[in-house]
Amino acid sequence: MGMKDYFHMVSGDGELSYSQNSSVQKQAWLLNQHILETAIQSLISSEESGKTEGLHVVDLGCGVGPVPLALVSLVVDVMQRKCKELNRDKIPKLVMYMNDLPSNDFNLLFKDLMKLEALKGRDNYGVPSCFVMGAPGSYYDRLFPNNTLHFVHANYTLHWLSQVPPGIHDEQGIPLNKGNIYLSETCPKEVAKAYFTQFEQDLTHFIKLRSEEMVHNGCMLMTLRGRPCPTDSLTWTSFELKLITEALTCLVSEGLIKEEKVDSFNMPCYHASTEQLESIVKKEGSFEVEDSKTSIFDVVPEIEDTWEKAQVITKFIRAFSESILSSHFGKNIMSPLYDKLLDQVFKFLDHGHPAQNHAVTVLLRKKHAY
Amino acid sequence: MGMKDYFHMVSGDGELSYSQNSSVQKQAWLLNQHILETAIQSLISSEESGKTEGLHVVDLGCGVGPVPLALVSLVVDVMQRKCKELNRDKIPKLVMYMNDLPSNDFNLLFKDLMKLEALKGRDNYGVPSCFVMGAPGSYYDRLFPNNTLHFVHANYTLHWLSQVPPGIHDEQGIPLNKGNIYLSETCPKEVAKAYFTQFEQDLTHFIKLRSEEMVHNGCMLMTLRGRPCPTDSLTWTSFELKLITEALTCLVSEGLIKEEKVDSFNMPCYHASTEQLESIVKKEGSFEVEDSKTSIFDVVPEIEDTWEKAQVITKFIRAFSESILSSHFGKNIMSPLYDKLLDQVFKFLDHGHPAQNHAVTVLLRKKHAY
Repeated sequence: MGMKDYFHMVSGDGELSYSQNSSVQKQAWLLNQHILETAIQSLISSEESGKTEGLHVVDLGCGVGPVPLALVSLVVDVMQRKCKELNRDKIPKLVMYMNDLPSNDFNLLFKDLMKLEALKGRDNYGVPSCFVMGAPGSYYDRLFPNNTLHFVHANYTLHWLSQVPPGIHDEQGIPLNKGNIYLSETCPKEVAKAYFTQFEQDLTHFIKLRSEEMVHNGCMLMTLRGRPCPTDSLTWTSFELKLITEALTCLVSEGLIKEEKVDSFNMPCYHASTEQLESIVKKEGSFEVEDSKTSIFDVVPEIEDTWEKAQVITKFIRAFSESILSSHFGKNIMSPLYDKLLDQVFKFLDHGHPAQNHAVTVLLRKKHAY
Repeated sequence: MGMKDYFHMVSGDGELSYSQNSSVQKQAWLLNQHILETAIQSLISSEESGKTEGLHVVDLGCGVGPVPLALVSLVVDVMQRKCKELNRDKIPKLVMYMNDLPSNDFNLLFKDLMKLEALKGRDNYGVPSCFVMGAPGSYYDRLFPNNTLHFVHANYTLHWLSQVPPGIHDEQGIPLNKGNIYLSETCPKEVAKAYFTQFEQDLTHFIKLRSEEMVHNGCMLMTLRGRPCPTDSLTWTSFELKLITEALTCLVSEGLIKEEKVDSFNMPCYHASTEQLESIVKKEGSFEVEDSKTSIFDVVPEIEDTWEKAQVITKFIRAFSESILSSHFGKNIMSPLYDKLLDQVFKFLDHGHPAQNHAVTVLLRKKHAY
């Protein structure tokens, strides 16, 4: 069973859902809103856009909740403003594809989208300015015919790998990354190498697929959960993964989880730096890097109370990690695990550590027609 | 609140779901499979198809379950066989849009589609032969940009009206169709006229919208739950609607439903004849009628036992009618209503009446580019 068979954000719109707990992803998205606006404007200004019936935009790994909704509203708004500014008679239609794995809650996404003001606009002939489509599937596979897309958006999704890196076991099949669930200062060099290799392969494959699907001069904006840049550490780890490891270790010492179960678990994600991203893009060769940046921000800065902050952060972590952790450790352990995580998050904040997130962003322009 | 806000087939894949109770819709679809095959073949054979990157096909009001799955498999299969027969080097990609109201169970549909063998085919470059998209929305609104679609398929869906016909109340707002929930031999001429007018308006509007979305020479195959042809009766009614009326009347006499509640309810559907369909298409003017037929078939012919047959037929009726009936009569009455309906269906069959369905089909070809 691969990632695509079980991985999803927590469904629905309840208290623990991703839909209600994606404020960090939204913070990261807002930081790069101006880059997105400039990119859409440049596509509208280009000569080709005057001739096309539709501007085809995809949100890859869209999920549900405020981020995909805000994206659709923003793209519609920017297109209309730019066409007005250019005095265009004919405003191209926006065809907005929402992509995610079939396990995503598309029912909720579609219901939310239909309520959006931005989708209610009609031209003089009564034709909507935006058509929304769902595009179910893995973005590590082709999702569209050649030369379809003008703009590709992937926010906080490409740090998820297509699989746990192979090569983190020795020749006897014994885990090399004992006591860890991801990279850490104590993990062997082979593990760090295996993680980077998997990320490089996945991203290279992803970029190649998108270059086939995109039109010449099309834009791609990728923002990933990443790491500080520059950093010479190959084993840099986010605070969330450190705290999940600590919570699991506690449950082992309490006898609720077997040690071997933790030893054999590895998070299928990688937090890269902008340097690493740029180097992979250049090596693949289909795109120019037009812009690149690393943003550091505090998670839920609006909450001051430590206990309340710990609760919100725990729910944010749960929303993205539960499907993976429960598929390995079992559903029954989820409640004690996230209770323990809440304690760990509280202690972490209480000791004065900052809950920081690093958003790494690159804006790419496609070089040649495929 | 319009139809599009509450109307849907019964969700999920449980015992009462539409997914498990759409064998009648599938029977109707199978009867016209050869027309669909011929139409797809003609599109592939046309000169334009050699030049296009993709053949864009939509299934309108697709629902879930075996019918949409069989359609996707068939279209992929026919395309590949025809391209082979023509020795085409380049097989166009199929872009298959699945349309329904956002209240349809797209989560289930996408999961089912991903398991389809037909979607696993890849060309020599590893690119899928078919890309599936969800297109949520009402087909009484525009769903695609101009000149997008090559083939439009609408199976057993267009007999649903966009709303209950206005004009079935007198000037004081008193219902004209007392004791009925649809047309019947006893209903006033105004009611029959109001129903036909609504159907004509809806279908004319539908055809105009599709003609804008379709390419020149594109095909549209529509199969509707209809009536015998020719018939001079303007008030022809299907056995299902007669039996629902009788079940409701029983519940009124038992005091479970108020009489006025039945008087004020009207089914938002219309069962047309092929003659009526053709005349509406010709009047609208965008399409040529290439083929047209009425098929009469027995519902669930494979079941001989009357009680078992009555149960299956009741579940089939429930799967399409429950959302509408519960929105008017309330959720609590659904269980006694469908128990009563089961009795009525059993009596009907036991008296030797045939449970027949009339599928009316037209194949249309678009005349001019929009």
